[in-house]
Amino acid sequence: MSWARAFLERYLRIPSVSAQRTGMREAVTLLLETFRELDCDVRVIETAGNPVVFAEKKAPGAKKTLLVYNHYDVQPPEPFEEWISQPWVPTERDGRLFARGVADNKANLAVRLGALKALGGRLPVNLKFTVEGEEEIGSPSLAGFVASNREMLAADACLWETGGKDEQGRPDIICGVKGILHAEAVARGPSRDLHSSVGVAVPSPAWRLVHALAGLRAPDGVVTLPGFYDKVRRADKADRQALAAMPYDEESRKKLYGIDGFLGGLSGEDLKEALVFKPTININGLTGGYQGPGSKTVLPKEARVKFDVRMVPDQDPKEVEAALRKFLAPYRVELVDVHGYPPARTPVDAPVVKAAVDSARDAYGKEPWLLPLMPASGPMYVYRALMPCVSFGAGHPGANIHSPNENVVLADLEPAEKHMARFVERFALL
Amino acid sequence: MSWARAFLERYLRIPSVSAQRTGMREAVTLLLETFRELDCDVRVIETAGNPVVFAEKKAPGAKKTLLVYNHYDVQPPEPFEEWISQPWVPTERDGRLFARGVADNKANLAVRLGALKALGGRLPVNLKFTVEGEEEIGSPSLAGFVASNREMLAADACLWETGGKDEQGRPDIICGVKGILHAEAVARGPSRDLHSSVGVAVPSPAWRLVHALAGLRAPDGVVTLPGFYDKVRRADKADRQALAAMPYDEESRKKLYGIDGFLGGLSGEDLKEALVFKPTININGLTGGYQGPGSKTVLPKEARVKFDVRMVPDQDPKEVEAALRKFLAPYRVELVDVHGYPPARTPVDAPVVKAAVDSARDAYGKEPWLLPLMPASGPMYVYRALMPCVSFGAGHPGANIHSPNENVVLADLEPAEKHMARFVERFALL
Repeated sequence: MSWARAFLERYLRIPSVSAQRTGMREAVTLLLETFRELDCDVRVIETAGNPVVFAEKKAPGAKKTLLVYNHYDVQPPEPFEEWISQPWVPTERDGRLFARGVADNKANLAVRLGALKALGGRLPVNLKFTVEGEEEIGSPSLAGFVASNREMLAADACLWETGGKDEQGRPDIICGVKGILHAEAVARGPSRDLHSSVGVAVPSPAWRLVHALAGLRAPDGVVTLPGFYDKVRRADKADRQALAAMPYDEESRKKLYGIDGFLGGLSGEDLKEALVFKPTININGLTGGYQGPGSKTVLPKEARVKFDVRMVPDQDPKEVEAALRKFLAPYRVELVDVHGYPPARTPVDAPVVKAAVDSARDAYGKEPWLLPLMPASGPMYVYRALMPCVSFGAGHPGANIHSPNENVVLADLEPAEKHMARFVERFALL
Repeated sequence: MSWARAFLERYLRIPSVSAQRTGMREAVTLLLETFRELDCDVRVIETAGNPVVFAEKKAPGAKKTLLVYNHYDVQPPEPFEEWISQPWVPTERDGRLFARGVADNKANLAVRLGALKALGGRLPVNLKFTVEGEEEIGSPSLAGFVASNREMLAADACLWETGGKDEQGRPDIICGVKGILHAEAVARGPSRDLHSSVGVAVPSPAWRLVHALAGLRAPDGVVTLPGFYDKVRRADKADRQALAAMPYDEESRKKLYGIDGFLGGLSGEDLKEALVFKPTININGLTGGYQGPGSKTVLPKEARVKFDVRMVPDQDPKEVEAALRKFLAPYRVELVDVHGYPPARTPVDAPVVKAAVDSARDAYGKEPWLLPLMPASGPMYVYRALMPCVSFGAGHPGANIHSPNENVVLADLEPAEKHMARFVERFALL
């Protein structure tokens, strides 16, 4: 068993669920111990929330410094009954390793550390690691941590936490993330649930919520919130080239998602463009009134929706939030519990991206592809404000991130570790 | 303590909740015993669901027969924590008697039986009673029971189960009920909950449900389902007169409901017309996706709504159901669990209504008012197909029907019993 896999299996046994406040200290302790084993200077930096583990390994004579970002927290494992093996017992099956958090993102830290271990005295760049514990709950402390430690974190580029490959095994190189706004909207009405016979004359918060939501997004998926697209940056020539070269197997994705077709009949270049460069608003949950068995003739006193807004450069979460509040007000729908962060991206033709691409080609023996902006979100903006960022990792399309039976393909660990090693070597030469 | 109140208190101690299948046999047993005490011929008639208690009292020489409809089942008492006294312990407080089911409709049966007891040998009409046990779950067995027992149920008119008075103590005489369709609509999408980052390209059942619902009813409350109003019968002159004379204290209702104003700014005659003569669609409950604390970036695999349609003559539940299915199909929203019944009404100038009005004036010493169609629903159509129907009872605006702390005003029992006695006397003379 490789050093990386041995570390990974120990790491996976820790139920480090930030949303449930479990396993945080155990994860920090293992990280401390591991960074020490790798001859790093390591510190635990407290925040208002969970601590950040900071580690540094200086390479004598190196001119470049790479800052590596990961997180030790993972998603909750529920629903347990859908797991084939226990989420906190890393289990090998059909060439994969199953456990909560293995793909997002414990294996990625393991291969990065595995590369550091393998390089030994040949490390060509200074490495800095920040491993935070609140990524899965929106990284509320990260911006403050970075603002308070800018000198300590100084680097030439940042290696982000995620990445994988497509169905044909071609590695992806990720240049950015969409921004996200999490929010809940509440429509309130009568002071208590009423008998629905009065519904012909009494205003209903459930209907008001429905009309407000229907006004936010058209049936074809186009967002109709006024001004929503005003700041969306147009893809440039390099983006267009990356998009054209980006693989996307529509049939296998439809099968994976269990759908007949994509939204508004999207396909081909339009579908890829939507996934990469288009913002949207998603309903995450609806609730209100009677939800039990049978029927109950009630006019509910309130109705709620949880939703997220996926933003692309240069959309601003504060501006989107303000537009939402303005739009919802006439419906008497109130926005509560709003939080999130802006999008962030590095140009696809940046030198650090080229280093990632070239080293991926070396490590995998396949042509990598560029993802200018990944459909998911992350707090990359905090680092991107200081330096270029790029991301790659050991994931794959069936990794079940955030779902039961999360996994990585075991045969992916070795090339992913090699990718990291070749990347730092190329990065040193930039 | 009057005979009626003593019976009522025994009756209220039985937790006869059809939805929870409790207390059904105990209620039937008490009714059997009570009808026997009143020298009625009584039978328990089994149905596919809960039995119907049928009782008959012949008046020697009487030419008229009145059929009385009540139900021994009541709403579930939940939420218990909102009750000031226990729902199954009838409790006197501030001149009211509190218990689940007291207003809907155990007190009404008690005063009808109290009148029978008081009239004794002076009963001027033949009385037939049908007390069913499934009204609160939609009376699924009632139409079959009536169809199988038409001869046994033959009568000149039917006295329905409900009624009360306004804030000024003026008794209401009810000539009809709205019809109701209970339904659930389901939008299904991907085969499992997906990460919402794909929501820019994957069709969302929650959004489809929102758009389907928004198309059913406009923000001002007007139903936009095609053809919905086609069969709505126009109020005739007598209806208009009844509506004009109908009291409705808007300020006290707003306070009771905890609202600032009525739907679409309704007030005055328009508000009364909506309550009495307009159909509508009500959202009873919304559910789908993540509803727990905090946020979860999920694209839910399905979303659901429970709703009811309140219909007026001559709307037909089957036609409304068909129109709904047709309308929802393009949104890929499926209608499930549809059940209900049509509206029913007797003309406000029918002789049996006049007998109810005149006897109310005798009993209360106040001018009664006519409600051509009550905003709530009931299976009156089953009886209305055979004979005219009218309704009155011992309720009041603060009775909290279907809510915690259901109650009647104790001082209302005596005039309500007197009303019943005077009514059968006037009915005998028609």
